[in-house]
Amino acid sequence: MARFLKTRTKVLGLHPGSLVYIGEKGDKEKIHINLINYTKDSFFESHSASFEKCIEHVKDSSQITWIEFQGLSDKKVIEEIGNQFGIHRLWLEDVLNTDHRPKVEELDNMLFSIIKYVSTERKEGRMQIKVSQTSIFFGQNFVLSFHDTKDDIFEPVKERLRKSIWRIRSLKADYLFYALIDLLIDQYYITLEKMGDYFEELETCVTANLNKLNPVDILSLKGEFLYLRKTAFPVKEALNKIIISNHPWIETKNLRYFKDILDHTIQIIEVIDYYNELTTSLMDFYQNTINRKMNEIMKVLTIFAAIFIPLTFIVGIYGMNFKFMPELNWKYGYLIVWVLIFLVSGGMVLLFKKRKWL
Amino acid sequence: MARFLKTRTKVLGLHPGSLVYIGEKGDKEKIHINLINYTKDSFFESHSASFEKCIEHVKDSSQITWIEFQGLSDKKVIEEIGNQFGIHRLWLEDVLNTDHRPKVEELDNMLFSIIKYVSTERKEGRMQIKVSQTSIFFGQNFVLSFHDTKDDIFEPVKERLRKSIWRIRSLKADYLFYALIDLLIDQYYITLEKMGDYFEELETCVTANLNKLNPVDILSLKGEFLYLRKTAFPVKEALNKIIISNHPWIETKNLRYFKDILDHTIQIIEVIDYYNELTTSLMDFYQNTINRKMNEIMKVLTIFAAIFIPLTFIVGIYGMNFKFMPELNWKYGYLIVWVLIFLVSGGMVLLFKKRKWL
Amino acid sequence: MARFLKTRTKVLGLHPGSLVYIGEKGDKEKIHINLINYTKDSFFESHSASFEKCIEHVKDSSQITWIEFQGLSDKKVIEEIGNQFGIHRLWLEDVLNTDHRPKVEELDNMLFSIIKYVSTERKEGRMQIKVSQTSIFFGQNFVLSFHDTKDDIFEPVKERLRKSIWRIRSLKADYLFYALIDLLIDQYYITLEKMGDYFEELETCVTANLNKLNPVDILSLKGEFLYLRKTAFPVKEALNKIIISNHPWIETKNLRYFKDILDHTIQIIEVIDYYNELTTSLMDFYQNTINRKMNEIMKVLTIFAAIFIPLTFIVGIYGMNFKFMPELNWKYGYLIVWVLIFLVSGGMVLLFKKRKWL
Amino acid sequence: MARFLKTRTKVLGLHPGSLVYIGEKGDKEKIHINLINYTKDSFFESHSASFEKCIEHVKDSSQITWIEFQGLSDKKVIEEIGNQFGIHRLWLEDVLNTDHRPKVEELDNMLFSIIKYVSTERKEGRMQIKVSQTSIFFGQNFVLSFHDTKDDIFEPVKERLRKSIWRIRSLKADYLFYALIDLLIDQYYITLEKMGDYFEELETCVTANLNKLNPVDILSLKGEFLYLRKTAFPVKEALNKIIISNHPWIETKNLRYFKDILDHTIQIIEVIDYYNELTTSLMDFYQNTINRKMNEIMKVLTIFAAIFIPLTFIVGIYGMNFKFMPELNWKYGYLIVWVLIFLVSGGMVLLFKKRKWL
Amino acid sequence: MARFLKTRTKVLGLHPGSLVYIGEKGDKEKIHINLINYTKDSFFESHSASFEKCIEHVKDSSQITWIEFQGLSDKKVIEEIGNQFGIHRLWLEDVLNTDHRPKVEELDNMLFSIIKYVSTERKEGRMQIKVSQTSIFFGQNFVLSFHDTKDDIFEPVKERLRKSIWRIRSLKADYLFYALIDLLIDQYYITLEKMGDYFEELETCVTANLNKLNPVDILSLKGEFLYLRKTAFPVKEALNKIIISNHPWIETKNLRYFKDILDHTIQIIEVIDYYNELTTSLMDFYQNTINRKMNEIMKVLTIFAAIFIPLTFIVGIYGMNFKFMPELNWKYGYLIVWVLIFLVSGGMVLLFKKRKWL
Repeated sequence: MARFLKTRTKVLGLHPGSLVYIGEKGDKEKIHINLINYTKDSFFESHSASFEKCIEHVKDSSQITWIEFQGLSDKKVIEEIGNQFGIHRLWLEDVLNTDHRPKVEELDNMLFSIIKYVSTERKEGRMQIKVSQTSIFFGQNFVLSFHDTKDDIFEPVKERLRKSIWRIRSLKADYLFYALIDLLIDQYYITLEKMGDYFEELETCVTANLNKLNPVDILSLKGEFLYLRKTAFPVKEALNKIIISNHPWIETKNLRYFKDILDHTIQIIEVIDYYNELTTSLMDFYQNTINRKMNEIMKVLTIFAAIFIPLTFIVGIYGMNFKFMPELNWKYGYLIVWVLIFLVSGGMVLLFKKRKWL
Repeated sequence: MARFLKTRTKVLGLHPGSLVYIGEKGDKEKIHINLINYTKDSFFESHSASFEKCIEHVKDSSQITWIEFQGLSDKKVIEEIGNQFGIHRLWLEDVLNTDHRPKVEELDNMLFSIIKYVSTERKEGRMQIKVSQTSIFFGQNFVLSFHDTKDDIFEPVKERLRKSIWRIRSLKADYLFYALIDLLIDQYYITLEKMGDYFEELETCVTANLNKLNPVDILSLKGEFLYLRKTAFPVKEALNKIIISNHPWIETKNLRYFKDILDHTIQIIEVIDYYNELTTSLMDFYQNTINRKMNEIMKVLTIFAAIFIPLTFIVGIYGMNFKFMPELNWKYGYLIVWVLIFLVSGGMVLLFKKRKWL
Repeated sequence: MARFLKTRTKVLGLHPGSLVYIGEKGDKEKIHINLINYTKDSFFESHSASFEKCIEHVKDSSQITWIEFQGLSDKKVIEEIGNQFGIHRLWLEDVLNTDHRPKVEELDNMLFSIIKYVSTERKEGRMQIKVSQTSIFFGQNFVLSFHDTKDDIFEPVKERLRKSIWRIRSLKADYLFYALIDLLIDQYYITLEKMGDYFEELETCVTANLNKLNPVDILSLKGEFLYLRKTAFPVKEALNKIIISNHPWIETKNLRYFKDILDHTIQIIEVIDYYNELTTSLMDFYQNTINRKMNEIMKVLTIFAAIFIPLTFIVGIYGMNFKFMPELNWKYGYLIVWVLIFLVSGGMVLLFKKRKWL
Repeated sequence: MARFLKTRTKVLGLHPGSLVYIGEKGDKEKIHINLINYTKDSFFESHSASFEKCIEHVKDSSQITWIEFQGLSDKKVIEEIGNQFGIHRLWLEDVLNTDHRPKVEELDNMLFSIIKYVSTERKEGRMQIKVSQTSIFFGQNFVLSFHDTKDDIFEPVKERLRKSIWRIRSLKADYLFYALIDLLIDQYYITLEKMGDYFEELETCVTANLNKLNPVDILSLKGEFLYLRKTAFPVKEALNKIIISNHPWIETKNLRYFKDILDHTIQIIEVIDYYNELTTSLMDFYQNTINRKMNEIMKVLTIFAAIFIPLTFIVGIYGMNFKFMPELNWKYGYLIVWVLIFLVSGGMVLLFKKRKWL
Repeated sequence: MARFLKTRTKVLGLHPGSLVYIGEKGDKEKIHINLINYTKDSFFESHSASFEKCIEHVKDSSQITWIEFQGLSDKKVIEEIGNQFGIHRLWLEDVLNTDHRPKVEELDNMLFSIIKYVSTERKEGRMQIKVSQTSIFFGQNFVLSFHDTKDDIFEPVKERLRKSIWRIRSLKADYLFYALIDLLIDQYYITLEKMGDYFEELETCVTANLNKLNPVDILSLKGEFLYLRKTAFPVKEALNKIIISNHPWIETKNLRYFKDILDHTIQIIEVIDYYNELTTSLMDFYQNTINRKMNEIMKVLTIFAAIFIPLTFIVGIYGMNFKFMPELNWKYGYLIVWVLIFLVSGGMVLLFKKRKWL
């Protein structure tokens, strides 16, 4: 349960819009603020910027400003952001609720998106999905991004801004917004590639090296794909909303970028579904293989036993102590018994071979 | 069957709109009426209010009045309410029919919603869903709420009204309507969290402690998730109806609150579906694990038997009473038999190991 | 196959609109005609009315006339009805084709509905669905109802008309039309309740009293739910058609009655689906339980055998007749063998316990 | 594979619109042309008509002309038809491609429908679906029908035309078009009825006469229903197209005939789905029954063995040849052993009965 | 994982629109350019054309020019093409990303389609799908086609152009565009036919020659069908887009060609789904058959053992060494034992036959 709805209970009974951070980090950690602002020709970057300074930059509409908030645990900062940018408490609540469903909302003066940052992690040999939430507010000349971890997940975008690769700095804020979402979607590809490799690892175990496999791994893999799908599926609808919205701050010709990541998202969901079905097949196949191998062993052993059972009966007969058992006194009685034993066992082997049991 | 459509039969053949309470409480219990009315600056609360007094308050349109009816067993009171508020008997019938499907209806002068109040209960170690029905009528300046239990399920909202947290008292009745539904939806989160914990309990049993598990528990858990889904799924459509309806008494800017709980509802349904699939997987996995363990035991035992069967045959041979059995008179015959026994059993163990059967 | 499309073959190759009764009653039985006509203040009822008299009443538009035809086997009467009321032969064919899919059609001057009357029947301890077809034509001031059985399935409605409960007689023919359909839908509730009880009966057998269960019962129950769904599902679409049609003879305010039975129909389909899934789960669970029990028995027996097999080998050894077997002459040889037997069997029991096989 | 896409490869790489007959008959067989033309008062029928004569009749717009082509193997005739009636080569290609998906197309001056003629065939005791393709072109005063077999599949319609049953000859060509499609759809009923009987045959085998069943029959039945569904499902969409098309040559009042066969088609698809699910259930049930029976036998035999194993051990003990075995010299030793044997075996039987293993 | 999203990781973190070839050929291979241009009366074909010459031809709008690029590994050429034809880098990126989902895009002055070229390959006796990507840009008087392999996949179209079969050269570029897509879709038929043959091969193994089957083949076949579906399904939507788009360069009367291949695509998807379901059934059936055969063997062997077990007990009795065993001294004791043995074994065989165990 820890995985979804983690601590929704913390919030229940409270007024809607109550700001409660439900992550694992506790309430005390400071929020780390990175400020980047740029024009076509200039680029300024500040780690651990003060919030006041950020506001100043945003007000200068000739620049594009990107404020990145790492960590969500300081309620006061979040509230302050809400006040400064006119963000309703309901959306702030969504930012803090790190289990929120991915979505895009059109606010009065912004677009607001929640998309997950997915990655993988190997725990005790088992591949698992790690998910953290990323919320992005996109206004005319600024982008605010929030994420739960201190990892610098947007570093590749920053690097491109620094070097203005493809003259990215000469583009509007809508392109920055797109670039951030694109990076989050690309992360799904990386994750799927790793999960796919892991799937093939398990598949190889099933078809070639059955003993090494812990069947709980397949059960758990199925759960991971179901979980990944849950985080990816709503993104499709969300991106569609951007494309349809006709938002004034997204230039029509740039919609093709969002269509492009929508394409990617659809492909991602299809691949997840594909693996999902394959995993179910694999589970069945694993169980069937186990059964077949077991049956094979049992068959051989049973045939083995079946051959010896009548032989034991035969030798039992001549172990009887009757006074009058003519065979016991025959000269070749013992030899005849051996001949009988070979005939019986040989006959049975032939019979079993004829019936294709051996 | 007790669970759905409990005693629809009581009503059948009667005129539609016949008021029959189908709950378990019998027809005799009194309905308990709580009255809350407030303005921005005032707050009045009365337990066990008389119905007449409530009506007076409702007529004063400068106030917002919330009348809460606990218990549904007194038909006359229900009829009286219908007359006073102009509610058609069909809707009153729905209020009393505590198995009704969740829905929202637009009446002439009100919105009418039926949403379930879900909770969990542990019976003989098994987690079960408990469902009771909540009907809410929302008019311009009043809210009528009906529920079947005497539990004070709306206490958190009352507390917020008393203290006017976030100036809730300065908002219109639409906000009160929202707050009540929000609480009912939040209840699904709590329930899902508990069911999720219970799922993990069972999952741990399956993967680590198989003997402690009663498989009926998994079967029953699947039933619970199916049941929970049935109560949650229609809520999505119902909330959508509110959002689309453009109802004059819901301010457009407040629609975002209803969109917010719609978001929650969709997430709830997705999580239920997720658990549903996981439970099916778990059931299969449980059965497969049982089979594997059993097969493992059978294999070892069969191999064990297979080793002794030829040995028993060998000693059977020399238990025969033939007069002419040369081996019996050999000095080292007995020793040779022991050597043979060790060779045969050792050879078989080696063979089985080579074939990876051991 | 008897169940669907029973004797469609009778009709095939014939001209469409050929009137062929395909029920089981044969072509010879008389159709029984009941006439009810009423105004707000009067009520007239005639069993075995003549068709001519019925027509007279229908022409008097100040009255509401309900003509009920019990039995469908007399082709001539059906044709006569068609001529008098201007019903196209295609619809008459539908009335006679008692396997027809439930539907609603808008004719020129009438609404035409086909809805099934479902009930249950216990055959050799097994609960089965019984379905008969009910066709209703609804015109401005009259209702024609046809059904295949001689059972007086609409008696509750008649009783309400006689007593004019809730002043039903002062309402228009649309209300009568509604009341008849409502009764047919209510019949699904009764049927589902009985099927639900029967499901619980089987469920109790599976979880508590496995030997008493005939597994064919579960297979057959699944078939019944699939069948029931087939008769209920098209009703949803049919009722929707009435609600959307905006038919001049249904007053807008009365649409809520039809919405109400649409609500019921949706709930019925949901409950059927729910039972359907539960039945599948139950079938799997039954099979798994059988397997588990069997495995448990096999395990105990196999362990039992495994303990005795080496013991039998030991005593076999000392049954050999070698001349030189020193142990045979030891004074305590026999005692030592017993000690050995106890050690071996005790050791094996301990080993099995340690491995949790016992 | 023979079943679908039989010899598409023959056509691949060729120009689209290349006329290649892909059926089994070879390219050499002659196409057989039947000509029927009629007015209200006249009827003319010619077997083996010449194509030129047909064209003359078509040009006389006061008559309705139906030209039936039996066999598709003569490419030149098909091309000639295309030229005379102005049918694009793409549609001619569809006529010859006897694996084409059922569909309806609106051409410039005609409606073009492809619908399958299904029937059943019993091969080595197994019921199989036989499908042949029927293409119909419907113009203002003519109908062209093509089918692959020489069977006179439309004989019932011809008979009705001959006798002008229900004055069918006084109706327009749209009615003839409808009558032909109706006959093809009716053929599904006959087929389903036969498949249904066959299903019940197999079901009876499973529940009552397990040994007589070849499980491949159920597998194959499932394939047949899947196949039948594939031929029926597109018909729904095709008929819908006719109804929606508002084609000038179909009178509005005659649309009800097409709605009627649409109704039938929907029912047919539902019944196929129903049987599909039942067949899956039956397959599972069959396998489970086999398992249960087998387990039952194994259980009895294992119990049987388990009773004798300790007895054999007991008699083994007293077969040992120790010099000092006091029991051997007891007077009642042998008797005591027998008593012991009865006690042990009796005790075990009681134990097994108590545990409900017997 | 190698199969999808092969090396998306190569591209991640790069600027969108970065041109990276992700195929297996490495970055060094030259792109091979074929130029075909024609009018109604002329035809010119050049292998290994220079790009500059191609551009010249395109500029001459009286001709239709088709430039075919075989191989995608030379980034510079791709960029140059983009510049010359005004293709945005995003689409160039799609061309190089050989795992892209099939689609159709409307660009400013072109239609852009990605459709897979599928074929089969037999690896170690197992049939596998081989997929390579084909991208086609279609402008007013030119078509650009890109594909990953050096195989001349479009040879049949070229041949038709050379000979102007059906006067194909007198048609516009839209027909060429259609002809190329048609060829790609036809390739699915060939592939499905081969996969279908392979399916039947496996099916025959399962029903008639169980030992020859490697169950991994069925698992792998299921994967292939799932994979094929993934490449075919988006084509439906893509072709629909062409038909709906009303593109100025596709003549309305030529839309029927695209409708024709849409029909084919739908049929292909249906056939894939059909095989998918059949493969699942086959997998289950295989496992069940294995189980049944195994059970049959086990049953016979167990019955065999069960018959000998009491016999062994009987002869064990008379192997005991009691001093006082009267039977041992009877004259016919030994004979009686043999009679007993025949009676017991005969009785058991009869019993088993009566119970239908044999």
